[in-house]
Amino acid sequence: MPRLSHCIGTDPAHRKEWGVSDVTGGDLCLALDFGGTKLAAGIVDWRSGHVIQQARCRTGEASGAEGQIADMLELVDGLLAAMPQGVRLTGAGVSFGGPVEAATGTVLQSHHVPGWDGLPLASRLSHRLGLPVLVENDANAVALGELLYGAGRGAVDLVYMTISTGIGGGVILGGELWRGHRGLAGEVGHMVVRPDGPLCTCGNYGCLEALASGLSIARRAREALASGAGSELLALAEGDPQSITAELVFRAARGGDEVAQSVIAAVATDLGLGIAMLCSILDPARVILGGGVAKAGEQLLAPVRESFRRHAFPMLVDRVEIVRAAAIDEGGLLGAAALVARAAARDRTCQMHVGIP
Amino acid sequence: MPRLSHCIGTDPAHRKEWGVSDVTGGDLCLALDFGGTKLAAGIVDWRSGHVIQQARCRTGEASGAEGQIADMLELVDGLLAAMPQGVRLTGAGVSFGGPVEAATGTVLQSHHVPGWDGLPLASRLSHRLGLPVLVENDANAVALGELLYGAGRGAVDLVYMTISTGIGGGVILGGELWRGHRGLAGEVGHMVVRPDGPLCTCGNYGCLEALASGLSIARRAREALASGAGSELLALAEGDPQSITAELVFRAARGGDEVAQSVIAAVATDLGLGIAMLCSILDPARVILGGGVAKAGEQLLAPVRESFRRHAFPMLVDRVEIVRAAAIDEGGLLGAAALVARAAARDRTCQMHVGIP
Repeated sequence: MPRLSHCIGTDPAHRKEWGVSDVTGGDLCLALDFGGTKLAAGIVDWRSGHVIQQARCRTGEASGAEGQIADMLELVDGLLAAMPQGVRLTGAGVSFGGPVEAATGTVLQSHHVPGWDGLPLASRLSHRLGLPVLVENDANAVALGELLYGAGRGAVDLVYMTISTGIGGGVILGGELWRGHRGLAGEVGHMVVRPDGPLCTCGNYGCLEALASGLSIARRAREALASGAGSELLALAEGDPQSITAELVFRAARGGDEVAQSVIAAVATDLGLGIAMLCSILDPARVILGGGVAKAGEQLLAPVRESFRRHAFPMLVDRVEIVRAAAIDEGGLLGAAALVARAAARDRTCQMHVGIP
Repeated sequence: MPRLSHCIGTDPAHRKEWGVSDVTGGDLCLALDFGGTKLAAGIVDWRSGHVIQQARCRTGEASGAEGQIADMLELVDGLLAAMPQGVRLTGAGVSFGGPVEAATGTVLQSHHVPGWDGLPLASRLSHRLGLPVLVENDANAVALGELLYGAGRGAVDLVYMTISTGIGGGVILGGELWRGHRGLAGEVGHMVVRPDGPLCTCGNYGCLEALASGLSIARRAREALASGAGSELLALAEGDPQSITAELVFRAARGGDEVAQSVIAAVATDLGLGIAMLCSILDPARVILGGGVAKAGEQLLAPVRESFRRHAFPMLVDRVEIVRAAAIDEGGLLGAAALVARAAARDRTCQMHVGIP
C-alpha cells in the first residue's frame, strides 16, 4: 500500500536513530495529529512529553477522510517498523482538527475534508493498530498537552487559544478539560467582539476569528493597502496582495512599516478584548496563545497584554498570565500524547503490546 | 437588643403559622440573604426548596457590616422563637451580595457597605447560632438554588444571570459551581460587549452591566428622552426623568411607547450578544435570567432569544435554552438553602440541634 506517493512533502528530517535512552519502559505512545491538510505521527514519551520519532506529510483535501487515514497509517507503519523489538506502546492519542465526540472517539464534522462526518475514528484505528485509541478535538488536546508538558505546567485553570488559519480554544478547569454540554465549549474564535465587524466564516459578524486569525491579519493588511496607505508590505509580497500572509505583516512591522504596525496593534487590541471577556466568565490563572501567529512572541503578546489590561474586569488586571505556548509545531503531537498520559493515570492497566489486537 | 427599630420596613406579611406538615424531620435549614440594602431570613426545607417562614427588612448602608449583621440576627431570632420545640435545623446558608471566599466563608469585599472587607461571616454566625454556616456569593448561591429547585432542574450545565441594579452571574458545570481561580468567575456583567459603549461602574467601557442592568435601562431611556424623542415615559415618571426606572420603561413599552420599545430592543440585543459570547466559551445547556429586570418575562426574553440567534455560534443556535428564573424575590433564600442541601448531600453527619454550639 505505497500511499505515501500521494502524500506530498514527507519530511524525513524529523527521523533519527533510536537511542538507548529512548526506550523508557512502557511509557511510550503513538501520537497522531490530523490537521486538515497536514498529518503528523510520532512516538512520544507521554510521561515527559519527549518526542522520540516523528513523521509528517501534507495531504490533499481531495483525498477525503479515507485517503487521509491511509496516509496517516503509512506514516505510522514507517515509525513502527523502525521501532526496536520489544518496545511497548501504552496506546495512541489522536488530535483531530474539528469537533469530535471524545467519549466515543467519533468525528462529528470536518469543515474542509469530505467523508469525516460521523466517522468512528478511534475504533477504526484501534482495530488496525491493536492499541487503545483516544480522540480529541485539536484545541482541547493541545490545551492538555500544554498543561502537562508546556506553558500550562503549574496552572490547573487555563485557557488555550490557537491563533492560526482560524482561532480555536481549549478550556481546562480544575485540571480537567471542560468540553461543554455538546462538546462545543472553547469556541473562543466565535466570541463576537466587534458586533459591527467583518463577516466571519461561521456566518456571523465581528467574531474574533474574523479579526485576528492568520487569514484575517492578512486581509486587514490588504484592506489597509487598498485604502492607499504606503507600505513595504507589497514589495515583501512580491507585488501580489494575495501573497500577503500574517507572517509577512509581522516581518514588515519589525522593519518599521507603519501600516503593518497599525494592523498588528488593531489585531492585538481585539485579542486582548476577547481574552478579557473570557476571563470575566472563567477567571483562569493563565491564558496560553498558540498556533502559527503566536510564533510572533512578544511582538504580539506585549500589545495583547496591554489591551487585556484596558478591558479586563478590574480585579483581574495584572493577575492573569498571558503567555506563549511552549510547543507550536509539535503541539498536536504533544496534545495527542497528553490524552494517553491522562488515560494512563486513570487506568494503569491499559498497556498493550504493539500488534496484539 | 431591639435593633429592628433601625430596620425600616420589616414585612410581617411573610409570616404565617407553623403547620404540622412544615416539620419535615431534620431537613430544614436557616437561609440568610444579605443583599446590600435588603435583608431576608427564612426557614426552608432544603430538600424541596419550600420556604416555610421568612422575615425581611430594609437596612441602611450607613449601619455598616456590624449593623447589618445585628439586623439579620434580629430577624433570625424572631424566626427561631416562633419555631416549634424539637425542630432540628441542618445548618445555615448565606447568600451574600458581593465576592466571598466560599471555602472559609469570608467576605472579600462589599462595594457599598463599609466594614465587610475580610469579615469572617461564616464563623461569626456559626458561633452565634450554633450551626454550621456556609457563605456564598449571591449569584453563585442563586444559580445553585435554580439548579436544585427552579428553572435549572434537569440541567447540569447552566449559567445564571441576575439582571438587577447591576448584572452578575453564576456558572454551574457538571452540576458543580465553577467559582474560578480566584473566586471571580461568572462576572458576566463585565464582558465588554460594546467596546465603544458607555462607562461602567467598574471603570471600563461598554460592559454588559453598563448597557443592560436596571440602572442602565433607566439611563438609556433618559438619554433617549434628552435627545428629544416624544414618549409617555416622562408622564409615567411624574415629570421627573430621575424617577424613570427599568420597570417604568417596560410598562411604557407594553403601552405602545416607541421610545421605551426601542430602548428594550437595544437592551435585549446587547443581552443576547453577551449570552452568545458566554455560550461560545462554555457551551451550557441552559441560560437562566433572574433579578428584578427578568420579571418582565417574555417581553424581555423573546427579543433576547432573537438576538442570541443572530450572534451565537451556528452549532449552538436553537440549542441553548434561555429561560426566566423560577424564583426572583425568594431567589436569595433558596440559594442559601441550596448551599445547605449540597453540603448535606456531601456530609450527612452535619445535622445539629439549634442552640448547641
